[in-house]
Amino acid sequence: MLLHLSTWPEVEAYLGRSSGLILPIGSTEQHGPTGSIGTDAITAEAIARGVGETVNSLVAPTINVGMALHHTAFPGTISLRPSTLIQLVVDYITCLARAGFTKFFFINGHGGNIATLKAAFAETYTHLVNLNIANADRVQCRLANWFTCSSVYKLAKELYGDQEGSHATPSEVAVTQYLYPEAMKTASLSPEVGKGHGFYGPADFRRRYPDGRMGSNPALATPEHGKQFYELAVKELSNSYLEFLAAE
Amino acid sequence: MLLHLSTWPEVEAYLGRSSGLILPIGSTEQHGPTGSIGTDAITAEAIARGVGETVNSLVAPTINVGMALHHTAFPGTISLRPSTLIQLVVDYITCLARAGFTKFFFINGHGGNIATLKAAFAETYTHLVNLNIANADRVQCRLANWFTCSSVYKLAKELYGDQEGSHATPSEVAVTQYLYPEAMKTASLSPEVGKGHGFYGPADFRRRYPDGRMGSNPALATPEHGKQFYELAVKELSNSYLEFLAAE
Amino acid sequence: MLLHLSTWPEVEAYLGRSSGLILPIGSTEQHGPTGSIGTDAITAEAIARGVGETVNSLVAPTINVGMALHHTAFPGTISLRPSTLIQLVVDYITCLARAGFTKFFFINGHGGNIATLKAAFAETYTHLVNLNIANADRVQCRLANWFTCSSVYKLAKELYGDQEGSHATPSEVAVTQYLYPEAMKTASLSPEVGKGHGFYGPADFRRRYPDGRMGSNPALATPEHGKQFYELAVKELSNSYLEFLAAE
Amino acid sequence: MLLHLSTWPEVEAYLGRSSGLILPIGSTEQHGPTGSIGTDAITAEAIARGVGETVNSLVAPTINVGMALHHTAFPGTISLRPSTLIQLVVDYITCLARAGFTKFFFINGHGGNIATLKAAFAETYTHLVNLNIANADRVQCRLANWFTCSSVYKLAKELYGDQEGSHATPSEVAVTQYLYPEAMKTASLSPEVGKGHGFYGPADFRRRYPDGRMGSNPALATPEHGKQFYELAVKELSNSYLEFLAAE
Amino acid sequence: MLLHLSTWPEVEAYLGRSSGLILPIGSTEQHGPTGSIGTDAITAEAIARGVGETVNSLVAPTINVGMALHHTAFPGTISLRPSTLIQLVVDYITCLARAGFTKFFFINGHGGNIATLKAAFAETYTHLVNLNIANADRVQCRLANWFTCSSVYKLAKELYGDQEGSHATPSEVAVTQYLYPEAMKTASLSPEVGKGHGFYGPADFRRRYPDGRMGSNPALATPEHGKQFYELAVKELSNSYLEFLAAE
Amino acid sequence: MLLHLSTWPEVEAYLGRSSGLILPIGSTEQHGPTGSIGTDAITAEAIARGVGETVNSLVAPTINVGMALHHTAFPGTISLRPSTLIQLVVDYITCLARAGFTKFFFINGHGGNIATLKAAFAETYTHLVNLNIANADRVQCRLANWFTCSSVYKLAKELYGDQEGSHATPSEVAVTQYLYPEAMKTASLSPEVGKGHGFYGPADFRRRYPDGRMGSNPALATPEHGKQFYELAVKELSNSYLEFLAAE
Repeated sequence: MLLHLSTWPEVEAYLGRSSGLILPIGSTEQHGPTGSIGTDAITAEAIARGVGETVNSLVAPTINVGMALHHTAFPGTISLRPSTLIQLVVDYITCLARAGFTKFFFINGHGGNIATLKAAFAETYTHLVNLNIANADRVQCRLANWFTCSSVYKLAKELYGDQEGSHATPSEVAVTQYLYPEAMKTASLSPEVGKGHGFYGPADFRRRYPDGRMGSNPALATPEHGKQFYELAVKELSNSYLEFLAAE
Repeated sequence: MLLHLSTWPEVEAYLGRSSGLILPIGSTEQHGPTGSIGTDAITAEAIARGVGETVNSLVAPTINVGMALHHTAFPGTISLRPSTLIQLVVDYITCLARAGFTKFFFINGHGGNIATLKAAFAETYTHLVNLNIANADRVQCRLANWFTCSSVYKLAKELYGDQEGSHATPSEVAVTQYLYPEAMKTASLSPEVGKGHGFYGPADFRRRYPDGRMGSNPALATPEHGKQFYELAVKELSNSYLEFLAAE
Repeated sequence: MLLHLSTWPEVEAYLGRSSGLILPIGSTEQHGPTGSIGTDAITAEAIARGVGETVNSLVAPTINVGMALHHTAFPGTISLRPSTLIQLVVDYITCLARAGFTKFFFINGHGGNIATLKAAFAETYTHLVNLNIANADRVQCRLANWFTCSSVYKLAKELYGDQEGSHATPSEVAVTQYLYPEAMKTASLSPEVGKGHGFYGPADFRRRYPDGRMGSNPALATPEHGKQFYELAVKELSNSYLEFLAAE
Repeated sequence: MLLHLSTWPEVEAYLGRSSGLILPIGSTEQHGPTGSIGTDAITAEAIARGVGETVNSLVAPTINVGMALHHTAFPGTISLRPSTLIQLVVDYITCLARAGFTKFFFINGHGGNIATLKAAFAETYTHLVNLNIANADRVQCRLANWFTCSSVYKLAKELYGDQEGSHATPSEVAVTQYLYPEAMKTASLSPEVGKGHGFYGPADFRRRYPDGRMGSNPALATPEHGKQFYELAVKELSNSYLEFLAAE
Repeated sequence: MLLHLSTWPEVEAYLGRSSGLILPIGSTEQHGPTGSIGTDAITAEAIARGVGETVNSLVAPTINVGMALHHTAFPGTISLRPSTLIQLVVDYITCLARAGFTKFFFINGHGGNIATLKAAFAETYTHLVNLNIANADRVQCRLANWFTCSSVYKLAKELYGDQEGSHATPSEVAVTQYLYPEAMKTASLSPEVGKGHGFYGPADFRRRYPDGRMGSNPALATPEHGKQFYELAVKELSNSYLEFLAAE
Repeated sequence: MLLHLSTWPEVEAYLGRSSGLILPIGSTEQHGPTGSIGTDAITAEAIARGVGETVNSLVAPTINVGMALHHTAFPGTISLRPSTLIQLVVDYITCLARAGFTKFFFINGHGGNIATLKAAFAETYTHLVNLNIANADRVQCRLANWFTCSSVYKLAKELYGDQEGSHATPSEVAVTQYLYPEAMKTASLSPEVGKGHGFYGPADFRRRYPDGRMGSNPALATPEHGKQFYELAVKELSNSYLEFLAAE
């Protein structure tokens, strides 16, 4: 059940039975020579919709630009500053909490969003208290990264070992291949790839990771793998969501 | 050519031949008893992609939550505050202008975005000057509302006359029916509908327009109409985009 | 009745009979080789005071610097960023709404203010709701541009035809001549004048409109014309204001 | 020479001979039972214009709403928050410094503005450095309160002694009487008046100073006194301005 | 009684007997060739703790970075922008006022903080009103600069006359020597020292005051003087604090 | 070497041999019935100074109020909003990077700071690029939590097992006991303690963790343990700092 394809009376009816909402959030950033710039948004959106169907929950439109400032030395990357993303989350939750939603389950496709989202949740809780919104004290935001699901992680290790890396990974590329097989890209990937570095600003990031990959070999990805990852993530996150709803 | 399905080397190559980018922007807001909450984002996205294919231009991911504060008394609406949306646009354009894009063509599906977007463009131009970005003086943002295309307007008048109204209109609903026929909704619509009022805050809006429609009769919409509107908008905006690119 | 020349007990008494307030807003920006930099503020202020006298309403001090970033490549222009102007409007209305004012009638002399003001109104309504101010839901802001009054527009067409242009227009210059005949300026104006361009950032604007005029011939202005425009605007806006007060 | 009545080529010429600008700043706030709400703006504007004529300097439009949050429990008061006023000053000076102005002389009519203006100046200097504006390091803002001129202070002591007080003072009321004799107000003023308290928030202020006066007896004011104060302030501030321009 | 060394139940108990809190605030900025960069924080903290012991009041952790933008051309200086410091103060007081504190006594060691703190207090009072916090109208912030205590000022004049100067003064250096005798520094100080200038941005400040001193001769300082200043300040501010608590 | 006890010429000399700076950051928040409210700042400061001595590095003043909004339902807690803390970090690093520092090593004592600090680092890097600061691309911020040092974690497990918990832990309390033995507190601690819950807003946190502890038994702490933790943390973080400096 997609919020975008629902009417407001349908949402009103939904709120009679549930106060939960799934919010996919991704990023628009370089994913190496062969990965789609929208990888994190595409995967988060698809998995969120899968979860929504499984658990019969409403799914919000995807936040498809997140916090990716460190990727901005590569063309095509779009990023919010953390302070902007915090305000965006505050605005979203304020609207939705006034309407009666209280359980917000963010399905996230991008590691770079994690810190800012956690900061945003804290800012939001206090903002709602400041606004004297009725249910302020009952609002709960939960962050669920599909790529850190234990089942996903285990399969990635089995299939790719160290070549999973940490950005432009074969696992996330595989999910995009499963979803958009027509958009699969190939390129000759250097066997040498930046890895293991910390990184700092955008220019520094590009110096350390010149083609955008971080220790990964996305050439190992296949659409079939993608289907497996997708199904594992949907299953595991569906359970997480139900536990989240059931918890006090 | 979708930015989300492109790689960064593809964007780099694209920038060798064009500095134009199409950015769809919609809204997530109530559209009356039968209209989809995502109507403005859905229509803007589809038309933007149609334009992108026609003119061989890159299309950015859709900004699917815009400025809809006046609709927030209806559940399901999500809105940014104008000040947040301005920062979001500043962030987008700053990233993209650093990468070399200079011609930004916003295809907009929501009247409520217009004022804030114009304000955001002004804020952005000066921000880029302040940052001493190389091409700051050549950056151009253009706002193109598909629903004010003359061909679209003319057809809406022919098909619906006064019942087109100004929100939850049969023309926009028709486009969503064409795109998502499986999500068509029906409801008994009161022949009496709020219209012609100014409006102010969210509660005031709902008092004046109790079911969310503004003078419209979306029951007149058909998927076939939607196809016509879609094609007219794509054609007219494709021409606008090419003129925009060609202009100094 | 000017707020600036009133005492607080007079304002308290006024609030017993009316909750309406007229707020003139202009700009401080280049108006071509012969137009006063304060044209938009001067005209808005005078017309607002004329309306105030006609309808016996309180008139606030003039917001004489508005959103004119696109004129900032010409010396003497002062502009707020849109995000600053939004906060300014929020602050004004918050103070005044707490005191009991609910009907805010902005008489505007500058096209460049329109978008930001509309954004500011939306931001303000929600801000007041967030603050739990007593009458938040009854606060109404109305934007009334004197230069788009139908009677003004008609006369300008009759007197100047195409030479009215869209900035540094003979009609607005005429009003300043009527009000400040001692400050009339002359200069040899090129018969060729930039017109019909879109425009973007400040440097771009100056390239397209090198002497600051936009398609206008302000040499046609006379103080007598100015008197006519002034009187038409006062009359038409007085009626608008009374309708605004009377409306629910 | 008023910026508002000048053209941009006149400002350009002015910048060839001077980089100084006088900026009047006042407030819109209660001034007791008989004082005009605009007292601080009216006096600052008139004195600034007097100085401008004396020293042949350009005078900017008046900032007529300042920092008066502590007066907001009285109807008619309008105030910016300090954070808004800081942004406003940053915006003003940024525009003007880009145009070539470097010496900004604020003639201030309101004690409540002082702290925020000083903060704003510091914020502005660093903002200009951050923007890499050409003359950033030469920009100088000077705050000159007309009511703390030694000649003004001395006369007020002579004429009113302790009854000068510190808000809604006879000296400032006298200046408004001189400028707007037709707007003189009378009221029976209690001989008992709040004085000597510190004060904090708006409600606290009104509790301590129930009719808005702070230890003052504005009934002592006369238009003739006002003329004297005006002339003393103009003379003393003209000298200050010339010293400011001459100093490195 | 230090907040940092207290438990929350102790604070709860404290609030049963007092709603007062002492907040030391200093700065991290150059203090000439021999003065510690932390002089203003070190002195404010020690004196605040002395006052706290004398009057049996709780002392908050020291705000050790304040508003010192004008010193930022000297290495080691750290400053908040005024707009940041305002938000910091708003955040502090909002937390503490919700817990029940209402009397905030800032013991300040840095002249450059004064303006921004006053602005921050005004912003805070209105913020608390906007949040509908229970005791918003009773919250009081008081600024107490130890270096402007009359007893301190008198002693400094006696000991140092004109060589006290206004920054990197022997009196403040003496207090740091008393507190940290092991950190005393010497350097050959030029007998010529910048003084009497106004100052503006950071580079301007360093031009006028090349070694960072403002008219002072810190070589006159001794730890014994420091002890005297410390004791005078603690005594005088203890009285001020008690009066502040006792006042309505 | 403490920045607060250094002079600016000493800092200038230091910058000739190192561009590294250690910044302790803690929090001011409840730590259960017996833990000091300043635990996180006290421990971070002491360990940072220990590291500074070990590696001969400059140590900045402690940021003693951090992001602790979730603890604000307990009296005595002070927290910045994440958006404020981000601006604070931006301001700190901007000043210091202009002076020549490039390697910023934050020694952190509070888990709740981690997300916001990471967001702040990203915001800062881009801010410095926007400002065109000379070494913007070489600025590096590193976050080092003393409580997640592997040696610390191992010892805590050995000493306390599951009773270490995750807030008001015996390990952190032990360090404060070692540093301030005179401030040790006792209280009868319920053997039942909230643990394992997620948490959300401040009221929610207090409901789940009614005495403020999270699964911990701080009664196990001793000053001797504290000495061990302190020494392990200093040793491990000294090595981390040297690696950080040495790394490209």
